[in-house]
Amino acid sequence: MKTLHMTRQLQRCKSKRFELYAITRIIHKVDDLDIKFVTQQYVARPDGFALTDLYLPQLKLHIEIDEGFHKQQIDADKIRELDIITATDHEIKRIDASVSIEMINQQVDQIVAGIQRTVEEQKTAGHFQPWDPEIEHSVNYLQSRGVIRVSENVALRTSSEVCNLLGHNYKGWQRSSASVPHHPNIKLWFPKLYPNEQWFNHISYDGCEIHEYCIESEEKKRKFIDKNLAENIQQMVFARVKDELGQTMYRFKGLFILDRDKTSYESGVYWKRVATEFELGSTKQ
Amino acid sequence: MKTLHMTRQLQRCKSKRFELYAITRIIHKVDDLDIKFVTQQYVARPDGFALTDLYLPQLKLHIEIDEGFHKQQIDADKIRELDIITATDHEIKRIDASVSIEMINQQVDQIVAGIQRTVEEQKTAGHFQPWDPEIEHSVNYLQSRGVIRVSENVALRTSSEVCNLLGHNYKGWQRSSASVPHHPNIKLWFPKLYPNEQWFNHISYDGCEIHEYCIESEEKKRKFIDKNLAENIQQMVFARVKDELGQTMYRFKGLFILDRDKTSYESGVYWKRVATEFELGSTKQ
Repeated sequence: MKTLHMTRQLQRCKSKRFELYAITRIIHKVDDLDIKFVTQQYVARPDGFALTDLYLPQLKLHIEIDEGFHKQQIDADKIRELDIITATDHEIKRIDASVSIEMINQQVDQIVAGIQRTVEEQKTAGHFQPWDPEIEHSVNYLQSRGVIRVSENVALRTSSEVCNLLGHNYKGWQRSSASVPHHPNIKLWFPKLYPNEQWFNHISYDGCEIHEYCIESEEKKRKFIDKNLAENIQQMVFARVKDELGQTMYRFKGLFILDRDKTSYESGVYWKRVATEFELGSTKQ
Repeated sequence: MKTLHMTRQLQRCKSKRFELYAITRIIHKVDDLDIKFVTQQYVARPDGFALTDLYLPQLKLHIEIDEGFHKQQIDADKIRELDIITATDHEIKRIDASVSIEMINQQVDQIVAGIQRTVEEQKTAGHFQPWDPEIEHSVNYLQSRGVIRVSENVALRTSSEVCNLLGHNYKGWQRSSASVPHHPNIKLWFPKLYPNEQWFNHISYDGCEIHEYCIESEEKKRKFIDKNLAENIQQMVFARVKDELGQTMYRFKGLFILDRDKTSYESGVYWKRVATEFELGSTKQ
């Protein structure tokens, strides 16, 4: 699992040769299989999407290789299925690749020393969590932590696993929503937050608003809006995304309530975020 | 120059993900800009061409990453322009990439330790030549060594530099042959040793025989063969090739004489190698 991840990650940064050089140097110099590296991670920023060259989730650290030309504007349409993480309190370090290879090496080595220092600090403080592909998306592991937070970029592989995290005991789950035990006014929702066959869906860059617009038929659209206006439901959103290796995942996006001011037949349904974390213990007895 | 070389080299090994992982690990762990690394080097073997994943010219060492599938047969036609080096006394080390990433790391680290040991030994023995892209293909540097050897894979960037290595003082040289000062019976020859517009040329895998066949016209072919049979010339061959970054180079292939037994109107001209080294001092009265 680590082998697949590590080797595929490197293969993704081939277009830019300085990026490949610097990133492979960071990874091989850090040389620690307890640290997860993700190349080319999409992050949501208040003004749009960004793509960072290297991301270390445990350190909330992103590394950018500046090759001396402007980065292409990212077309939201092309990445709509992809996993876009919340990077609010993340740090970004930059490597200037327009200099000699000796100077690139020096910058990389400083970043590597910084990574090693932070990991040591996390270990000393007792909150270093070694990278383990087997547990990072496991129900048991997330349950043991007791609370899920948007800022921790929680994700599971299947919607039935999400249901089980919330207290169900399902083998499989095909529907796009589910109940939450002991929370009759909360519904689990597994939306595609990008335009698809039947829905023109969108989540704002800051993750605070979801817009849902039925494009299947006028009748269905009105019926759907009426139903939502009649109910008083909180949606616990686990968005369906593709991870960096192309696998489907369900990523926690927070709890949302209907925005009654903005919702209308003309403009569709708007949801606004009201919570970014949820206590799992509250679903028991 | 080193920056361009190092970054482009990594970019070349993108198709195989284990190769990319293992090779970047070797390069970044050795972490010595005095050592030259070439990815995807073609080598001539008695039975055909081979492509090695990583080549360290100073150590005459090749490293192969075995990804658990058979290597594609190399089509001689596709690589005809490319630089194919002589690897007679070279060592080949293999990395089994079908194992866990921990085991791959272990194999790589053993090879890295071996490289560092060999470099130390060369330094102690006083014959370590630090990689210097500025001098490795320079006339002055080759002249200072006094002798050129096929086994040392001598190459220069232009045919006029080859002429000057042999004692001329040319600014440019457009022809495919030149004289050698103080050696009236030796001629410098800059052939394309692969089929081209006018010639069906070929050098044997072991580098011992060159076959030259004029395909322009029957008349020219006969005239050319008659001329060669009448003369008694040694050809000092610097073959025109493309190096690993696509630049033209002239690679020393040895001294050849006409093979009178094999040469005929029907089969064309055959040259056989009679020397693999040449004393440069002999060109100075």
